[in-house]
Amino acid sequence: MATESKVTVAHYLFTRLRQVGIKSLHGVAGEYDIEALEYLEGAGLKWVGCANELNAGYAADGYARVKGISALFTPSGASSLAALSPLAGPFAENIPVVHIVSCPSPSQLDGQAHHALKNDNSNLGLFADMHKRVTIAQTHLNDTATAAADIDRLLQTCYQRSRPIYLALPTSILAAEVIATPLATPLSILPQPNTPEIEATASAAILFQLYQATRPCILVDGGALRRKITPVVEKFVRESKLPTFVTAAGKSAIDESLANFAGVYTAENGGAMRDFIGGSDCVIWIGGLGDASNAPAGFPKGLSTLRTIAFHDSYAEVGYARYTVHMRGILNRLSSVIDLSRVKTTPFRPSYPRSGDSPGSDYSGLTAGDFAKLSLSKHSDITITHAWLWRKLSEWLQPGDILLTECGAAFKGVSETVLPNGCLAISQTLCKSCGYALPAAQGAALAAREQGRLGRTVVFVGERGLQATAQAVGTMLQHNLDVTVFVITDRIFGTNKGYVTDETEKSVARKPWGDMPKWHNGNVPAAMGGKTMLGRGQERRERAFRTYGVMTKEEVERLWGEKEFKEAGGMNFVEMYMPKDEAPRAAKLACR
Amino acid sequence: MATESKVTVAHYLFTRLRQVGIKSLHGVAGEYDIEALEYLEGAGLKWVGCANELNAGYAADGYARVKGISALFTPSGASSLAALSPLAGPFAENIPVVHIVSCPSPSQLDGQAHHALKNDNSNLGLFADMHKRVTIAQTHLNDTATAAADIDRLLQTCYQRSRPIYLALPTSILAAEVIATPLATPLSILPQPNTPEIEATASAAILFQLYQATRPCILVDGGALRRKITPVVEKFVRESKLPTFVTAAGKSAIDESLANFAGVYTAENGGAMRDFIGGSDCVIWIGGLGDASNAPAGFPKGLSTLRTIAFHDSYAEVGYARYTVHMRGILNRLSSVIDLSRVKTTPFRPSYPRSGDSPGSDYSGLTAGDFAKLSLSKHSDITITHAWLWRKLSEWLQPGDILLTECGAAFKGVSETVLPNGCLAISQTLCKSCGYALPAAQGAALAAREQGRLGRTVVFVGERGLQATAQAVGTMLQHNLDVTVFVITDRIFGTNKGYVTDETEKSVARKPWGDMPKWHNGNVPAAMGGKTMLGRGQERRERAFRTYGVMTKEEVERLWGEKEFKEAGGMNFVEMYMPKDEAPRAAKLACR
Repeated sequence: MATESKVTVAHYLFTRLRQVGIKSLHGVAGEYDIEALEYLEGAGLKWVGCANELNAGYAADGYARVKGISALFTPSGASSLAALSPLAGPFAENIPVVHIVSCPSPSQLDGQAHHALKNDNSNLGLFADMHKRVTIAQTHLNDTATAAADIDRLLQTCYQRSRPIYLALPTSILAAEVIATPLATPLSILPQPNTPEIEATASAAILFQLYQATRPCILVDGGALRRKITPVVEKFVRESKLPTFVTAAGKSAIDESLANFAGVYTAENGGAMRDFIGGSDCVIWIGGLGDASNAPAGFPKGLSTLRTIAFHDSYAEVGYARYTVHMRGILNRLSSVIDLSRVKTTPFRPSYPRSGDSPGSDYSGLTAGDFAKLSLSKHSDITITHAWLWRKLSEWLQPGDILLTECGAAFKGVSETVLPNGCLAISQTLCKSCGYALPAAQGAALAAREQGRLGRTVVFVGERGLQATAQAVGTMLQHNLDVTVFVITDRIFGTNKGYVTDETEKSVARKPWGDMPKWHNGNVPAAMGGKTMLGRGQERRERAFRTYGVMTKEEVERLWGEKEFKEAGGMNFVEMYMPKDEAPRAAKLACR
Repeated sequence: MATESKVTVAHYLFTRLRQVGIKSLHGVAGEYDIEALEYLEGAGLKWVGCANELNAGYAADGYARVKGISALFTPSGASSLAALSPLAGPFAENIPVVHIVSCPSPSQLDGQAHHALKNDNSNLGLFADMHKRVTIAQTHLNDTATAAADIDRLLQTCYQRSRPIYLALPTSILAAEVIATPLATPLSILPQPNTPEIEATASAAILFQLYQATRPCILVDGGALRRKITPVVEKFVRESKLPTFVTAAGKSAIDESLANFAGVYTAENGGAMRDFIGGSDCVIWIGGLGDASNAPAGFPKGLSTLRTIAFHDSYAEVGYARYTVHMRGILNRLSSVIDLSRVKTTPFRPSYPRSGDSPGSDYSGLTAGDFAKLSLSKHSDITITHAWLWRKLSEWLQPGDILLTECGAAFKGVSETVLPNGCLAISQTLCKSCGYALPAAQGAALAAREQGRLGRTVVFVGERGLQATAQAVGTMLQHNLDVTVFVITDRIFGTNKGYVTDETEKSVARKPWGDMPKWHNGNVPAAMGGKTMLGRGQERRERAFRTYGVMTKEEVERLWGEKEFKEAGGMNFVEMYMPKDEAPRAAKLACR
């Protein structure tokens, strides 16, 4: 009998990560993980050490949004606890992140309080217990007999249910050997096909309601962006020809140049859009976040359950009836069996304000694709405004670009940007952690490079977001990532208290506690290890960056037109000055 | 009947914080806390906004170590979760921190997933539940009838049990009114006096064991530094005349110029010290961390329970017998009733290595106070070494100075520094979070200024610690704190992979994953808003800093001798270059 070949547990784990598409492991290196990381290179994984767990966690989040899955590595103890907050976002927004927690073996813990809350063996259980709130499965790899199967099961759960998992990896098991055979077969990570009978019943119920409706429409939410399901959703949207809105979390899930794309639906972007959705007798809500065991997160305001057909990842709800069907299968079926002649389509033209309009007034009658240019031509102010910026951005963006916006003004503003097809918009729409965007951009840019993705990574932050996780700038430079960073500030026009800082658009920034250190933002890339790259035509250099400052619309247009700015590699770091009190329309409406 | 005067719940809470000595509230400003912070000024509290929760939490920790208690403010949701890790340190090391979590009122949560993991009302309970692992009491202030009593009870618990508490503060209760009368009486926060009979019994048992012992000694641990108990401990140490060691966590709890001070006991500082403690038949362990319901944290290696008399905060153990007595009362009683003629005192002279000694060799026969100068005179190398630095520091430090050391090399090195009386040494000795020291220095410096404390705040970090929480530099500058920052680096002599970076002294730094962005450290203060102050004799300026670089022992001595460096306010930011492979003795021993 031939001996089965064996590999170490560590090699098995990292090879499995590599097989599901993870090429880089983000994390924080401590003491106990020394040995674990020895096995990375052998499995073809690259290490991306981050300055702290907030940066590492957000970077893993951004990486997963591009690649479909990611991994985060921390030591156990306080370091693993620092990852709880950045895992809350992926947990809420259905993003699969494998959290590997390197922990001491039992013998190392003996008599030692190092990195532990208390010096007893209950600690590791305690850490896992806390992680239960932000991960859907947990395991402690302490048994060689089951380690390989545990790894496979956890990774499948992570990917299939599209949420974070917790995997404690004791030093003592790293070199233990397991049978290598399973590695020859890639993990099955696609959802199981739906039961045909359930799928057929659900499909019939959906079509019955849809055909009866007098004014149906589609609302695409964040879940539509996960697990490469976007083409399936877009096919349904394209073929149904129904007016289709996206939520903030669903931004970029469908081609915004489609004739039936109707705009971004937020509570604040009211007017005709709210009236249309509120008046619809059949809203097809695709990709709502949440799972079967919990109330859905972020049920859009103004929808009634009775009038809603909701497609979640692993189930669909037709009014109050729930069917256990995965979104992929049921949407594919609907696309093929739908009888369009029986669907009443009421076109909706997106409505945007013109410059100078009072907030809330409508400007209907244009397709989204036409809108940006028209509204821009009417601007005559010199300084940069949100109303101008986010629409102007529609012209500058290119297919394939990844656009990240920090929660707050940038996130609210981007709902007015019309994205070219194939763009990916990334925001942390539910947890809204300040400081998310910059590290997420680092993770996304790295993932994009690994994929050979065309297009740039562009991130907009305010000063508060920059200060929260500025270290990501150093990581971007260290790994020579191509990222264009816009830091929006109103510093030059007044104090740094204003609408434009992240999360502060309501009023906090006007108060003493809205004050913050007055960084010299333009000095940040150099302080974090960047090498200035002046002039054009230079060779590609390590850790290259260019800094810019723009104060007027004209300067923005000139900058965006520059060949070097568009095409040179490395980091573009742009300080963008706006007048005090400047805010996107959605933010201003929220303040009234 | 006269109407009782009333105050708002928010005012009541903040006034109570002010009454227990908290003048500044560290935290992160989000959206929901806008209203809460409106009440700060009225209660005489200052807001210190930090860049993220790691920075805010460590700063609150440092502040509490100087002031005896502190408060930390975050919004609920992901932000409150980000505070879990920095609260793990205070939880493990018995430091009272009041974590105020500003949360939305129930009506705000309705239909909204903002800042929430999921859109249901179980969220707030979920966050409180996670905080149960790092706080000893939790409350949700949602009832006006009990709010004032809840606040009083929680603050008393926090202070008396000397550990963090969690206080959720919904927006809806801020302006609700409660009777102001209790505020006229300051909170009773001292521990209840011991029951005389228990105290007398415990005292008799302790003295019986002590008088029988042939070679008793004292080991002072971290708990001795909490709650202004230091004078009580020092009195006992001084009067008992027993050889007294301190643990790393207990460093600075007693006057190191006392004739019976015997040095810092760590697992690595072995030799004669380990033999002495291991051979003692009665170790009096004062201030061990942990509480009555749990295994003590950090039971020093090599102690046997049977031969140990352990004084914890709220109980004492004589061998296996536990007595419910607070440390303050029992130590005071022992100091007054001890019959020194019945105590056998075996003097112990601290043992240190000389420069050039092989690790582990001893140099006995000197008092600690004499040691530094002697060993320094034997140094002839030019470059800065840990062996030289930490002893040389003994000469430069002055009474009242606060000395913070990042975990890793700096923390290990400082065990060889002999502190002038009245110095306070701060390290995160149990959780050992990378990035702790810099924000903790910000909190400590602010607390020191508020107290009018004489002496400077001095912090040693490595590059990894600097990068983890560099934002603290901006906060120090913003608040014009007087802090001397030493960043130890081996950059100039080789790569930035070496012993000297925090937490990496074992070997991680030599591996690819030990690599990190190559910051230009000296540019950090300017990037974070500092204003260079060149030359002498200038007026005190806002956000002033001076940068220095030192590469040789001579440069260090010259710098330390400079009047401006010693006396000018603002920030001294010093890059200290060490040879690659340089490490403190304790770190080298740990690697063998």
